[in-house]
Amino acid sequence: MHSVRSAAARLRVGSRMAVTAATVANNVKAAAPLRTVVGQPLFNSARLYATKSVPYTVDKFPGYNRNENFKKLTEEDVHYFKSIVGDNGLIYNNEDDLFAFNTDWMNKFRGKSQLVLKPKNTQQVSDILKYCNEQKLAVVPQGGNTGLVGGSVPVFDEIVLSLQGMNRIRGFDSVSGILTCDAGCVLEVLDNWLAEKGYMMPLDLGAKGSCHIGGNIATNAGGLRLLRYGSLHGTVLGLEVVLPDGTILDNMSTLRKDNTGYDLKQLFIGSEGTIGVVTGVSILTPHRSKAVNVALLGLESFEDVQKAFKQSRTELSEILSAFEFWDNNALQMFKKHATPKAVMENEFPFYVLIETSGSNKDHDDEKLTTYLENMMTDGVAQDGVVAQDETQIRSLWSLREGFTEALGKEPAVYKYDISMPVPKIYECVEDMRQHLRDGGVFGQEDSPVTDVVAYGHVGDGNLHLNIAAKRLDPKTASLIEPYLFEWVSKHQGSISAEHGLGVAKNEFLGYSKSPVMIKLMKTMKNMLDPNGILNPYKYLPSS
Amino acid sequence: MHSVRSAAARLRVGSRMAVTAATVANNVKAAAPLRTVVGQPLFNSARLYATKSVPYTVDKFPGYNRNENFKKLTEEDVHYFKSIVGDNGLIYNNEDDLFAFNTDWMNKFRGKSQLVLKPKNTQQVSDILKYCNEQKLAVVPQGGNTGLVGGSVPVFDEIVLSLQGMNRIRGFDSVSGILTCDAGCVLEVLDNWLAEKGYMMPLDLGAKGSCHIGGNIATNAGGLRLLRYGSLHGTVLGLEVVLPDGTILDNMSTLRKDNTGYDLKQLFIGSEGTIGVVTGVSILTPHRSKAVNVALLGLESFEDVQKAFKQSRTELSEILSAFEFWDNNALQMFKKHATPKAVMENEFPFYVLIETSGSNKDHDDEKLTTYLENMMTDGVAQDGVVAQDETQIRSLWSLREGFTEALGKEPAVYKYDISMPVPKIYECVEDMRQHLRDGGVFGQEDSPVTDVVAYGHVGDGNLHLNIAAKRLDPKTASLIEPYLFEWVSKHQGSISAEHGLGVAKNEFLGYSKSPVMIKLMKTMKNMLDPNGILNPYKYLPSS
Repeated sequence: MHSVRSAAARLRVGSRMAVTAATVANNVKAAAPLRTVVGQPLFNSARLYATKSVPYTVDKFPGYNRNENFKKLTEEDVHYFKSIVGDNGLIYNNEDDLFAFNTDWMNKFRGKSQLVLKPKNTQQVSDILKYCNEQKLAVVPQGGNTGLVGGSVPVFDEIVLSLQGMNRIRGFDSVSGILTCDAGCVLEVLDNWLAEKGYMMPLDLGAKGSCHIGGNIATNAGGLRLLRYGSLHGTVLGLEVVLPDGTILDNMSTLRKDNTGYDLKQLFIGSEGTIGVVTGVSILTPHRSKAVNVALLGLESFEDVQKAFKQSRTELSEILSAFEFWDNNALQMFKKHATPKAVMENEFPFYVLIETSGSNKDHDDEKLTTYLENMMTDGVAQDGVVAQDETQIRSLWSLREGFTEALGKEPAVYKYDISMPVPKIYECVEDMRQHLRDGGVFGQEDSPVTDVVAYGHVGDGNLHLNIAAKRLDPKTASLIEPYLFEWVSKHQGSISAEHGLGVAKNEFLGYSKSPVMIKLMKTMKNMLDPNGILNPYKYLPSS
Repeated sequence: MHSVRSAAARLRVGSRMAVTAATVANNVKAAAPLRTVVGQPLFNSARLYATKSVPYTVDKFPGYNRNENFKKLTEEDVHYFKSIVGDNGLIYNNEDDLFAFNTDWMNKFRGKSQLVLKPKNTQQVSDILKYCNEQKLAVVPQGGNTGLVGGSVPVFDEIVLSLQGMNRIRGFDSVSGILTCDAGCVLEVLDNWLAEKGYMMPLDLGAKGSCHIGGNIATNAGGLRLLRYGSLHGTVLGLEVVLPDGTILDNMSTLRKDNTGYDLKQLFIGSEGTIGVVTGVSILTPHRSKAVNVALLGLESFEDVQKAFKQSRTELSEILSAFEFWDNNALQMFKKHATPKAVMENEFPFYVLIETSGSNKDHDDEKLTTYLENMMTDGVAQDGVVAQDETQIRSLWSLREGFTEALGKEPAVYKYDISMPVPKIYECVEDMRQHLRDGGVFGQEDSPVTDVVAYGHVGDGNLHLNIAAKRLDPKTASLIEPYLFEWVSKHQGSISAEHGLGVAKNEFLGYSKSPVMIKLMKTMKNMLDPNGILNPYKYLPSS
């Protein structure tokens, strides 16, 4: 890979670029050790904080009432389930073992399930749901349990239907790049498996080491490379889904084009396990790029971030595979919880991480160098770092991926995941800071709010807004909500760009969807799950 | 643009390449005049054959019965519709003017509607459908009427709801490339409008000069560049849809990421106007590539076609924007109806058209040259033509796009549009030829079948199989169907890859979808259109 310096020398650009290039080289050296600090798997380390002292969701967020139409689990039920999954296919009445299935990884939501079922195949899932539907036993489907909105853990005593026992790769067509597999396959495992064949998964996210492809589909996961490879609505070619009554909907197409009837599988993508359990997946996988470059830029304003993005769409175009940004507040949050503390020599109000992926290293290097040179010459970027090898690429990425973990070490965080037209997204952050200052909860030494931190996927208009605080505090909460949702709604944004609704956002759906849309969603839910046994208390608003 | 010759000289390849390059240069010269022959708009010329002698669908394909639950149109109804769309917003009882709306462009299907409504805005569409639903008046939504399965023309006396009066561009975000517009905008008009802004529509098809974006969405149009830009399920970000009861479903999101509830708009993509009328569209448009190259290869076998495809995914990768193929039979069909007759000096059993689109001309030329050189050196391709300018690019494309028109000049054609795993698609063609020979309808001078012609999108596993005949003949028909559908079904293929179902394929849906799937589709239809007024007699099987 070419550093900006060597490229600059080759291209004989002016002294300004040369000076910057020197800075870049130093900075990359400084940046490299970061990997060892933040490189540990995000979710494994997060699980370490888990303690039995996590409060139950129903105690922490009052207002939930158990639906008394649901039957309470009996010994006969457990006996029946054993006949389906065997003695080793379930966890029953064992608080220690049940804890990990009852609690989300952030320890924010905790249910009271007494039973986890781990079917080994689609027929077992079908047999389980058929029985649950007949008996009116409520069920929570669970993949890697890496969600952020409490969607994959029970609220009350719902049975946890874990897909972790279904992790078989079913087939791969090396001409078309179409992979078929069980829903319980871990995203990173699939990606590594495909790497040997020269392919890759079309999605990537921080939780890849734990999340299941089935969960990715059920939550319509977006992630870091949606910009390049598009959404799961485009890349998922087929699904096998078990409906609430146990019916197996076999739609495991391996065709890129198939216009024979309503594309029913689309309904299950992003349905968060409320109308069916995804058991099998057929997905189009792109070729793994031979050349990958990662650059980091320091910028003065969000206007410059937008300029850099727009120009990257023209100059990097078909090789652009990620365009991420964060503000200096996010960097400070990272530095608070990790050392070494510097990535570049100087600090800047904004940072942009650019990844290119292509089939010809020389071509990509030239495109990136030209782009970076233009960004520097035009004064859009103030400084730049280009990773020199795979280790440095990972270092830069782990910085971007480390914000979630750093924030997890704060006493309290109000987490939001919004999308709106790109020109508006950072205005929202600045407005929120001022609003919290005006409300007297931010800006003073004894304020409960310690910082408002923003990072996200510029290319998708998707912002992760995090409000770090010393403690959860009713005044702060009431200043944030519904203020933020109203702000988003006013700008035709989404109150949940990629995290989904779960129990955290379902009551706020009206800020992003019209009453007509919500009514039709409820009709759809009632049609497919008339007893409401699948993932109750979530997703759609209760009233 | 570099020709293979100049690139070969630059790269100092051996004599074999040089010889080929000389052939190429000659051939390009020969290929150029094709444009004037096949360059006229496909559908305008096709309409020239239209005569009033086109038989009605119900006479040509017996077995249809008018649903007597539908009211027959009265003068009061027409009077009411005039109050919505005005005197100039409808065509009533005028056979000449109604003909184009009652008949598909192939003159294969013809309905008996006495009324065409041309609403100007979404509210008018809503008012019309509300009334039709209350009165049980059946309706056929119609866009550009360029479909191939009779989906957009009436079967009996259904009212035609034409969207051609709704052709306003609503907005464009030049940072994100998101376009919003009315459903009645013509695809090519949108593409030309975007061209001025440096963007392009993510889909392209032969009918682009006539088809509407709303119709594209209602039929989930695939086309020539799905390989690069993906399906409409990924690129359509939002829809405005009027439901059969007149309810306006406003889902005009302009967000790339929005995980708030069931993605209802997906249901309408490919629903062929049976559950709602698309009135507004929000779509993600890619940057228009600065450099476009088109090459044509001659190959010995379909195995070589596959090798060329697989290698193109590695070497052309991110710049590959189309990979089309046809067999020599398709070329002969073209030559039968158009002159000049030669594209390359020699003829080959197979041809492949490769298009690349990228942001850097030099890089793309180099990638393509290397690829072509490898294909020649490895003996995968026998000859090659590279277009030297925009005119020659159009010439090569018009050859690919001219097969439909050439076939239209045959006395009779049995048209199929199937998809299946790439390694199987041509085996299906060869098998069909043998099957028709064995059946005694092909291969002799007096056989009814004159040729079996194949072309399509290799990258999508999508084959257009056309059986040209001297006349429609019951024996031939019974040899083709259900034989072909069974063949497709056995290989997990689709009996309609991109053309949809309409009246031509609806009864055969069971070959591509399970009874469980079809049952759920019918439930969906009944839920959204309980009176069945939208596009009746089509899409789903009658029994």
